[in-house]
Amino acid sequence: MPTFNALPGFRDFYPADCAVLNAICARWRDTARRFNFLEWSAPALEPLELFTEKSGEEIVRQLFNFEDKGGRQVTLRPEMTPSLARMVGARANAMRRPVKWFAIGENYRYEKQQRGRLRAFYQYNADLLGDPSPAADAEIIALCAESLRAFGLTAADFRIRLSDRTLWFLFLGSLGVPETAAAAVLGVVDKIERLAPADLLAAAAAALAGTALDPAKILEAVRQFTALGSLEEMRAFFANRSASDDGAKIAARLADWQTLLDALDALGLRDFVTPDLTIVRGLAYYTGFVFEAFERAGDGRALAGGGRYDALVKKLGGPEMPATGFGMGDVTLRNLLEEKGLLPAAAAAADFHAIALAPECRPALLADAARLRAAGAAVEYALKDGKFGKLIQAAEQSGARTILIYGPDELARGEVRLHDTATRAERCVPRASLTPETTAA
Amino acid sequence: MPTFNALPGFRDFYPADCAVLNAICARWRDTARRFNFLEWSAPALEPLELFTEKSGEEIVRQLFNFEDKGGRQVTLRPEMTPSLARMVGARANAMRRPVKWFAIGENYRYEKQQRGRLRAFYQYNADLLGDPSPAADAEIIALCAESLRAFGLTAADFRIRLSDRTLWFLFLGSLGVPETAAAAVLGVVDKIERLAPADLLAAAAAALAGTALDPAKILEAVRQFTALGSLEEMRAFFANRSASDDGAKIAARLADWQTLLDALDALGLRDFVTPDLTIVRGLAYYTGFVFEAFERAGDGRALAGGGRYDALVKKLGGPEMPATGFGMGDVTLRNLLEEKGLLPAAAAAADFHAIALAPECRPALLADAARLRAAGAAVEYALKDGKFGKLIQAAEQSGARTILIYGPDELARGEVRLHDTATRAERCVPRASLTPETTAA
Repeated sequence: MPTFNALPGFRDFYPADCAVLNAICARWRDTARRFNFLEWSAPALEPLELFTEKSGEEIVRQLFNFEDKGGRQVTLRPEMTPSLARMVGARANAMRRPVKWFAIGENYRYEKQQRGRLRAFYQYNADLLGDPSPAADAEIIALCAESLRAFGLTAADFRIRLSDRTLWFLFLGSLGVPETAAAAVLGVVDKIERLAPADLLAAAAAALAGTALDPAKILEAVRQFTALGSLEEMRAFFANRSASDDGAKIAARLADWQTLLDALDALGLRDFVTPDLTIVRGLAYYTGFVFEAFERAGDGRALAGGGRYDALVKKLGGPEMPATGFGMGDVTLRNLLEEKGLLPAAAAAADFHAIALAPECRPALLADAARLRAAGAAVEYALKDGKFGKLIQAAEQSGARTILIYGPDELARGEVRLHDTATRAERCVPRASLTPETTAA
Repeated sequence: MPTFNALPGFRDFYPADCAVLNAICARWRDTARRFNFLEWSAPALEPLELFTEKSGEEIVRQLFNFEDKGGRQVTLRPEMTPSLARMVGARANAMRRPVKWFAIGENYRYEKQQRGRLRAFYQYNADLLGDPSPAADAEIIALCAESLRAFGLTAADFRIRLSDRTLWFLFLGSLGVPETAAAAVLGVVDKIERLAPADLLAAAAAALAGTALDPAKILEAVRQFTALGSLEEMRAFFANRSASDDGAKIAARLADWQTLLDALDALGLRDFVTPDLTIVRGLAYYTGFVFEAFERAGDGRALAGGGRYDALVKKLGGPEMPATGFGMGDVTLRNLLEEKGLLPAAAAAADFHAIALAPECRPALLADAARLRAAGAAVEYALKDGKFGKLIQAAEQSGARTILIYGPDELARGEVRLHDTATRAERCVPRASLTPETTAA
């Protein structure tokens, strides 16, 4: 006889787990609603090219992709942003801007098998499209922070590290790094904590191949830049450097930083956001302010990440459409909430559990169950008649608040007996007076 | 430049559509909660064998199946019942019975392209496992009916046709059809309305090949059987026939019918359920009472279908576990609700839309927006400062109930101006007094 299990890296959600997932999604939805973001959704299966167009052919290694029975190259989505860009692009001209959308969906990545790495995970995405200003960045970062605070997490639990690929490109330009090499250098910066010194130098040399620049010197300048921990330090850093052609651009960009930080301050989020230029976000499609939310204790795991991606909608066939957004997964968040004792409570048991002490009592039980359910109560009942002791024991174990006992004597009087599962208090009431609020107390 | 679309048969959910889908799912969830069913979920990607084990190799034609990068034969699920059977089977011994579970998930079938045929659709499944009695069938059928009534549909809109594969097998046995041929005959019955007379006869002959039975006579008896429209007619039908060895079994089964119909009567659902033996449910795994919900007008489309499948859990590796359940898709239901004007209303616009008349007013706007959001209000705000006329026009078009106007004069007094988008009434209130309930009226 075969025994079946979920595929490796995939999760079964038994009711207790499903209740937690639903509670997490409900909290995300409520926070997005308060920010007036509208929910959207898209197919979990999409044309493969949608993702290779965005991320390059190398992404295919990480995909659950295949050829469908119609000869189409398709894939389970690894993320929802390309679908978003496709959908917004298709109707951009009819949409009031800014477009503020969020989605919750399952994504799929063929990750190497290791502890804690899943191949299917839920992700909450929020995106604001159609506005290029730091005010839009502030709104998205605020939503990200508030979506974590909604679970009771505080500034002691997580921090949003804020960086800026625009400022990075201006900085690299000021070092003489040509535009064509800048993205590759940022790829090296992304690995700066993970590579051994010799490997780092080799990677920098590879990124700078074809230039006359000294990789060691560039790395040294990069380290000074990534050490800047505040807007004041960033201002001082650029003020101390010889003026470059990009001086005005750098000044304007630092003014954008001021606008963004002021807005986050006004939104009450100063304690949650730290400038941190080590964050560059590996993906080449990010174009401006980028950020990641990390837990502050333990392993410092990433809880969410995002940033500005002003070119993607156009790249996928739509019009010019500046955009910023973030994604937040369910797995790390759930682990953190569990550690902090902040997991939303699972759904409650039924309000009523009804039992019939004789077959002739069952029609009354069923009629009242139907009426209470129609009025909004959650009603369970024993499918079998039987001995009182066994029925009442099962009813008490069910966790229901109140047991409804249908016996011949009570029914003869048009009544039902109520039994409180906590206190075992009992009383009889006329059946007609039963409402979802009725208790035995 | 590439233009991307969703795959054929797949749907994009723009916010208005997503709101309808969410409202449908919310109604399903609430109904299941009132019946005390617990939500579960499972991966959308499963081992291919889970489905071929249940339904045979021929199902593969209809699947989005492929080999993953680890060499596993996998498929997008066409339905959730095998995953349910797998999960319940794995933990059956630790579960209190009956197990009452529901799920809402997207399923995938590689259907031939035709109007109204989708390749991805949402389905609501509810299952009751661990109880073989007609009381359990009644509970599942009641949940199916109430899940449709929850949208405002009445007995004028839909009907549940109730049939019974157990009674069918007893009837076919009384005709002399051997057990080995009975399932094939039911396959013919399933097509009785769709096949031309000659094709039907040929199909019956094929199903009865190897027996000495006359296909035409069997078809004639089948037609008499399927014409029975009530339990009374079923009783009379069997009473008029010569007694067979299965007479006692048939009598017991008709008593089960009585129990089931009495329970549905007590649950207030007599008007919604019609005995109809033409329903046999094509899938061989059904074992007892089966049913389908149909719309009464128009094309009479199927809204839901289900029945008892007592052998599946064991077949997929679990213990003996009687089970009954149903599935209800979103597509037909949504079309019907649309035609009847019963589609749940889409989400409302924001409660507040805030505008700042000068840059120095923005911090106050942001602080109040954050405070109102924290208190539960949905708050939108203009990302740009600008001319009053343009800002107020956009704010009114947003559909928000109340516009919050942050001007220098009001702020100097510690106030904000409220503007009612419906009446254009205005008044100023102290900023500190703003709550989610504040209105301009």
